[in-house]
Amino acid sequence: MSTSGSSISEKLDAYVAGIRPKFEQVLGQMVEIPSISMDPQKRAEMERMADYAVGALQEIGAVAEKVTTPGNPVVLGQIVRNPSYPTISIYNHLDVQPADGDEWQKPPFVFSVDGDRYNGRGATDDKGPALAALMAARFAVENDIPVNIQFVWELEEEIGSPSFEHFVKANRLRMPADCVVVSDSIWIARGKPAIAYGLRGVQGFSLILETGTKDAHSGLTGGVARNPLAELAQIIADCYDVRTGRIKIPGFYDDVMHATKKEVDSFVSSGFSLAEFKKAHAFKKIRNLTASQALKNIFALPTFEVHGIVGGYTGPGIKTAIPPRGEAKISMRLVPNQNCGKIMRLVEKFIKARNPDVKIVKETSLAPYLGPFGGPYADAGREAMKQAFGREPAFTREGGSIGAVVTMKNHMITPRQKRGVPVIFLGLSLPEHGYHAPNECFDWGQASGGIKMFVHYFDAIASMKK
Amino acid sequence: MSTSGSSISEKLDAYVAGIRPKFEQVLGQMVEIPSISMDPQKRAEMERMADYAVGALQEIGAVAEKVTTPGNPVVLGQIVRNPSYPTISIYNHLDVQPADGDEWQKPPFVFSVDGDRYNGRGATDDKGPALAALMAARFAVENDIPVNIQFVWELEEEIGSPSFEHFVKANRLRMPADCVVVSDSIWIARGKPAIAYGLRGVQGFSLILETGTKDAHSGLTGGVARNPLAELAQIIADCYDVRTGRIKIPGFYDDVMHATKKEVDSFVSSGFSLAEFKKAHAFKKIRNLTASQALKNIFALPTFEVHGIVGGYTGPGIKTAIPPRGEAKISMRLVPNQNCGKIMRLVEKFIKARNPDVKIVKETSLAPYLGPFGGPYADAGREAMKQAFGREPAFTREGGSIGAVVTMKNHMITPRQKRGVPVIFLGLSLPEHGYHAPNECFDWGQASGGIKMFVHYFDAIASMKK
Repeated sequence: MSTSGSSISEKLDAYVAGIRPKFEQVLGQMVEIPSISMDPQKRAEMERMADYAVGALQEIGAVAEKVTTPGNPVVLGQIVRNPSYPTISIYNHLDVQPADGDEWQKPPFVFSVDGDRYNGRGATDDKGPALAALMAARFAVENDIPVNIQFVWELEEEIGSPSFEHFVKANRLRMPADCVVVSDSIWIARGKPAIAYGLRGVQGFSLILETGTKDAHSGLTGGVARNPLAELAQIIADCYDVRTGRIKIPGFYDDVMHATKKEVDSFVSSGFSLAEFKKAHAFKKIRNLTASQALKNIFALPTFEVHGIVGGYTGPGIKTAIPPRGEAKISMRLVPNQNCGKIMRLVEKFIKARNPDVKIVKETSLAPYLGPFGGPYADAGREAMKQAFGREPAFTREGGSIGAVVTMKNHMITPRQKRGVPVIFLGLSLPEHGYHAPNECFDWGQASGGIKMFVHYFDAIASMKK
Repeated sequence: MSTSGSSISEKLDAYVAGIRPKFEQVLGQMVEIPSISMDPQKRAEMERMADYAVGALQEIGAVAEKVTTPGNPVVLGQIVRNPSYPTISIYNHLDVQPADGDEWQKPPFVFSVDGDRYNGRGATDDKGPALAALMAARFAVENDIPVNIQFVWELEEEIGSPSFEHFVKANRLRMPADCVVVSDSIWIARGKPAIAYGLRGVQGFSLILETGTKDAHSGLTGGVARNPLAELAQIIADCYDVRTGRIKIPGFYDDVMHATKKEVDSFVSSGFSLAEFKKAHAFKKIRNLTASQALKNIFALPTFEVHGIVGGYTGPGIKTAIPPRGEAKISMRLVPNQNCGKIMRLVEKFIKARNPDVKIVKETSLAPYLGPFGGPYADAGREAMKQAFGREPAFTREGGSIGAVVTMKNHMITPRQKRGVPVIFLGLSLPEHGYHAPNECFDWGQASGGIKMFVHYFDAIASMKK
């Protein structure tokens, strides 16, 4: 039986105020485990992260285990209080982005607290939100909210969830859920809650061109030698208009489902401002766009990006050698209804026709996602956000990609063995939290609001099933 | 008074056979000093290199000193036996290229001998040739060849000789010479001596584009964010046709003095083979050209090359961040009669018109050089090459750049205080020696032939003046 909204709110305020030291202690311990899934040297840290997570889940009374996959384990935690209660499955991930570069003002894997701000790699993406859900579940248990709560904590999200489909398919019978909540998304602006209903997909690839086996002297060979860096530069310039971002590969836009005017209006209502966007991401210069075009570009149009060009001399001064090898690291964000495989075939055909010596290596591939934004679970999310943060959320999309979402949508089952478990996004990150960027942080405002939001959501689901 | 050719040859054979252990010992000690002029951390090694060189010169009876400049010192060694004798000034450099990268099969600054092969950074460029000249001078002293010999050993050649003009202007009154021999050039093929009579110049620059101050998430910002790596790639593709090497900047070729048919025929007669070229430089693929077009491209046409593109993620996998900054390291080889300053202005105008946010930083600038290939000093060189290596040399050009050549040509004076000291090239390096490349080496065949060549040259100059 659900407690009433008002009595929950009172207890909840006291609970949240009291839980803060514990939240900071656990977040600190989680941040200080450098769980960089992209780094093959960090395999032991991934296991350490999973073990820690199992312990944290057990501490609040969950049955928890590390579930083996062909890659990193997935941590599964279950609080099954009564099979007749509705079950909410909450997805987060505990792996993090690399934290290289000299822009970090503090060591990325040393947790620190500056007032309400929590510093460290993974604080907002996605350890902080995971912990907010955990703390909310603890309250639900202590206060007998009649729901079952399940935690699915992945450790390969940042590398495109290569083992997650395997995990879901192998374990779905023992982890049915009435709904899935994904808490790995970002508001447009502080103070303006947002619920995403769509994601871009991503397709990564590397271009490798080898023209020799050692550096060549540009005086002795220049004019006859091929230059792999320049040839890769040419391919990049052929693939897209770097000024506008428009991709020039024939057929690339054929399947794009363009956002409707109603959707774009909803994007704009989210509190988006180009000035704030520029500030939040520390840009000096951005493309010259209106706010609505910018939101269309980020939420509903594909991109082509170069992330690094490897090869040649990168030290001080200029070493006038022609390198023997170049590698360009590229990804494309894709939108509904683009298909990763089909797009990759277009790209391969286009590049091979221009430079047959270039080797194309496929990397991460995640499908785009578009969910409905009506129905009882989305309505419960909207209401929970409003109660926790005092304001009606805007329905937006995410420019990023969460591979696990499509997997859960396609493969998880309800307690009655049906497919098509509804997936809704209840994210807590803010643009200024530095998602995937140096100086990542989270904050107590979002954490405390997040704990409340999850509790209200649990309560709404409990009421719904009565 | 000159000894006769035949009596010199007999003594010389014995001398060269006996000097080998000493040659290897001194070359080894020189190679093991990592005199990388490009590396600001190596200032102390540059001084150590200069001190060692002064000692080696003094050991053969030269008056030697480290001459201070605004940059690294220049080592000046003089064997003035009689002011009435002709004076030959021999230029070499003792600084070396960096030796980074994992393609080195042995540590670059540990000298090793494999049969006739001498391994180590700087072995062929240019410590080995410098030492061949030194060993020849020792023979000249011991055998009373009536010449004065002067050594000018630079320590900033690999960074474009920024202090060399200062050195020559400040010291020319005390270092007059009848001719200058530059021993820092490369044959086209082993067994086929070559004398270069021209050099390409070089103009380096960096393009820097900053669009932010930290990595940005390509999902959250992609479509609005500018990508500095892609924008630099576009500029590179705009500047030149990467397939043919043809530069697309308007006016770039206006001042190019094209090689005559006679010159190209002479280039082709040098023993050049595309297959050997490809093998020597360890290329897997080169541009599809005839031998004569390849030689025209290397000796007598300008180039545009990208040496490195800095910025973004270069580790394993793909990190889908948009970097805040990109830097492209570029150089152009220039040919007679192109002017570095004029070309740089064309480049700046072209790039700024396309992308005004790109910062252009000028680097190394060395003028191209074209010398005459007739006259008594060139003839003496031809004869010395023939006597030492048993074959008539081909007159070719160098695709590389030696800034000091133009400086010596313009500023050195004869013992009668006249300008216009003839500069000739008597180089000893072979394509397979890995000039500026990993696994650099020199060999005893070129070293022993080189010692003989210098002795015959001294003898020819002595005879000429009788």
